[in-house]
Amino acid sequence: MYQDRIRMARLRDKVMSAQDAATFFNDGMTVGMSGFTRAGDCKAVPLALADRARQEPLQITLMTGASLGNDTDKVLAEANAISRRLPFQVDATLRRKINAGEVMFLDQHLSETVEQLRSGQLAPIDIAVIEATAITETGAIVPTTSVGNSASFAILAKKVIVEINLKMPTQLEGLHDIFIPTYRPHRQPIPLISPEQRIGVPYIAIDPSKIVAIVITEKADSPSNVLPPDGETQAIAGHLDEFLRSEVKAGRLSPALQPLQSGIGTISNAVLHGLIDSPFKDLKMYSEVLQDSSIELLDSGRMTFASASSITLSKAKYEHVLKHINDYKSRLVLRPQEISNHPEVIRRLGLITINTALEVDLYGNINSTHVGGTHMMNGIGGSGDFARNAHLSVFVTKSIAKNGAISSVVPMVSHVDHTEHDVDIIVTEHGLADLRGLAPRERAVTIIRNCADPHYRGALQDYFSTACRLGGHTPHVLHEAFAWHTRYQESGRMLG
Amino acid sequence: MYQDRIRMARLRDKVMSAQDAATFFNDGMTVGMSGFTRAGDCKAVPLALADRARQEPLQITLMTGASLGNDTDKVLAEANAISRRLPFQVDATLRRKINAGEVMFLDQHLSETVEQLRSGQLAPIDIAVIEATAITETGAIVPTTSVGNSASFAILAKKVIVEINLKMPTQLEGLHDIFIPTYRPHRQPIPLISPEQRIGVPYIAIDPSKIVAIVITEKADSPSNVLPPDGETQAIAGHLDEFLRSEVKAGRLSPALQPLQSGIGTISNAVLHGLIDSPFKDLKMYSEVLQDSSIELLDSGRMTFASASSITLSKAKYEHVLKHINDYKSRLVLRPQEISNHPEVIRRLGLITINTALEVDLYGNINSTHVGGTHMMNGIGGSGDFARNAHLSVFVTKSIAKNGAISSVVPMVSHVDHTEHDVDIIVTEHGLADLRGLAPRERAVTIIRNCADPHYRGALQDYFSTACRLGGHTPHVLHEAFAWHTRYQESGRMLG
Repeated sequence: MYQDRIRMARLRDKVMSAQDAATFFNDGMTVGMSGFTRAGDCKAVPLALADRARQEPLQITLMTGASLGNDTDKVLAEANAISRRLPFQVDATLRRKINAGEVMFLDQHLSETVEQLRSGQLAPIDIAVIEATAITETGAIVPTTSVGNSASFAILAKKVIVEINLKMPTQLEGLHDIFIPTYRPHRQPIPLISPEQRIGVPYIAIDPSKIVAIVITEKADSPSNVLPPDGETQAIAGHLDEFLRSEVKAGRLSPALQPLQSGIGTISNAVLHGLIDSPFKDLKMYSEVLQDSSIELLDSGRMTFASASSITLSKAKYEHVLKHINDYKSRLVLRPQEISNHPEVIRRLGLITINTALEVDLYGNINSTHVGGTHMMNGIGGSGDFARNAHLSVFVTKSIAKNGAISSVVPMVSHVDHTEHDVDIIVTEHGLADLRGLAPRERAVTIIRNCADPHYRGALQDYFSTACRLGGHTPHVLHEAFAWHTRYQESGRMLG
Repeated sequence: MYQDRIRMARLRDKVMSAQDAATFFNDGMTVGMSGFTRAGDCKAVPLALADRARQEPLQITLMTGASLGNDTDKVLAEANAISRRLPFQVDATLRRKINAGEVMFLDQHLSETVEQLRSGQLAPIDIAVIEATAITETGAIVPTTSVGNSASFAILAKKVIVEINLKMPTQLEGLHDIFIPTYRPHRQPIPLISPEQRIGVPYIAIDPSKIVAIVITEKADSPSNVLPPDGETQAIAGHLDEFLRSEVKAGRLSPALQPLQSGIGTISNAVLHGLIDSPFKDLKMYSEVLQDSSIELLDSGRMTFASASSITLSKAKYEHVLKHINDYKSRLVLRPQEISNHPEVIRRLGLITINTALEVDLYGNINSTHVGGTHMMNGIGGSGDFARNAHLSVFVTKSIAKNGAISSVVPMVSHVDHTEHDVDIIVTEHGLADLRGLAPRERAVTIIRNCADPHYRGALQDYFSTACRLGGHTPHVLHEAFAWHTRYQESGRMLG
């Protein structure tokens, strides 16, 4: 009964197959698709586009909110349908093409994509493809499990293709809060002053005559692939919990802490999970993605409200939340990622941000993205938006990788995503380094002592001592700064 | 007739010598002093403090807005009076001690110092020392040629020492707009929506009983040491001017451009100077410091308003502006640096930001601070606040230094202050690289072709080609990434 979901009756004759909708694409077009951390992505049109690209030259610039599920990036990449991709991805096949220089990838702060689109600094969007729960009486789009960049993509695109997903409960309507900042040079303040506040409307209002096709689907989002907590992630959660308790005791935080942001992934999920048994109360989230742990915090009553741009859950949790969405709706809101990640709002609310590092260095600089300094893993995502503007910026990582062949604490990170200015706290399973108010040389001592794996502490201390003899505000032995990385490339171990 | 300047009569008996005021300091105290880019710094008390430190153990943590003039940092450093310094400095003696690890220096985004103070993440201020034009009837402080962090220092300090500088014209009163954000967790939006708007009051309101001493001085600010434009800085200005014209022609900017920010220094002063003969009109500045060129733009009518946190001018221009301050007052405002540099306001207004790089790399990462990757020059200052949140983030540098022994375009920057995400445009005397919408490999091609010195292009291209063969989103040859820097250390030239 998809007709009930297209409440503007005259749009019903736009319903067509994904194959027919895919004929709207031309080679060289810029396409904006819904989807953020695998949630709310389009399920049918991208695959039909890939089918066409396998048969004829057809390459697009593909923008999304963040990552897509359903192997969409893989299928499109294999079909050579993507020439340029932004602002984030997590797919192995696409990643291989990016690292081979075959797909041009723009790794962006997630708050910035639509800002750049709007100001004409990125090529304009020809077609937006947006997954919807419904189309309203006025032709507005009700998103599904993510908002991401969907609103501005649809507003700025010349044409819009809507995928109505019958798997999505109609009760999702009302979950979203779509607010678009007024455009420069006459922009007004964003009026959001608390995570639970609604400042917009629950749908994406566009000129309905831009809707050229409606495709009906019935397929769930890809489940999250986050691993359950293990001993090390639980130790990380424990150190952070202990630190937050001491901050409350010192009067620097209230028992409600500050609104929490947590990046996607196994470690940050475990950290949030650890808060379920904490003494904090009336917690709130102001984040970009909600994982299983966010729902568990809501279920436990420990958290009273969560704001994000998407919901990305394990299969069981996903089905539970969609089934009981009416029970959650008063405690959840999904916003455009330019609002969830907006520096203005993040700085105002004063978030405690928890993001994951690939590697950290002696001085607290962070590499979140580039394996070996060169090969893109996923992208910086929203971590820059959050860490730069946080009340308290926390980065978490396990102290070693590859059974100890790699130390996550290195003399100098091989790629910088976050500079020391944006990093207050580093936590590994061994302990927590509180870097607030410390100069680089003091940061090094704390990070080596509290965070590095014991097997690497001596070598780190040796490097640091040699570097200090050479002098400098941020001491380094430049010709040895990446010796650990190059030794790993050559021998498979960072140390001999 | 200093009495007229202390309009709250009962404070007049707090007038004392700098030596007497200096007795309020104890070893280990945290002191916040006025002063931003050598403007509005205290002229007498710091020297009396140094006198004491030469005779007894007396070391303080010294916070300011930004740099101090009058050799204050030098005198204090020589007297061993500083154990810890933040958030910025430009003094050769202090720099030597920082790089030797004798003074702990916190290099901070200039918008963040008072945010961290207010939230208890930095040690609280024992004494604030603030230069003033006058004290009002209610005991409020009227600043002089800078605001910097003075307002929050005075508000948060336990005791306040005021230096009233008789050299400063009383007509400075009314120039300042002091607005303090409401504190978290109940912060409201900052209501500023245009550079010329006033949102606060023209004085720093504090409890006057905190004023424990008033010292009378009569000494000018240190003049700016910016060099006049030369052929290369004029060429940089020319490339940027041409680019801005093309943006206006393409409809991406109006003839009023967007509000301008310009870092302090010879190159950015020359760039602004170059706009005097441009076709743009009704220009506005929203910056942290106004240099000679800003005043010249106002004088020419090309610019109609300038907002900043300090005024730092050459001697002649300084005397002219102070003499005619009433003529300028309707076109100038000085704000706290947390407002001039606030991410919220910068992002809202959509600034064109122009900052100086020490070195840039193939992918557009920027080192603004660390010579050879280790030795602090001045500090990141406000460049991070501005570049991250800009409408258009421009970095300028001459393509070579030390008569060509150093290339400012290197394979990998030896220290990262600004990541590629925060850099839209790079300009050298050879040309301009427009990096918007480009992936790292495309950025490299553009930067080598347009910005590098011709003598270095071949070597850069060789490095890039080898790196691309190794693969990666951001190709590098990790064991050669700093070979140019180490060769310079060993031989005095980056290339053989």
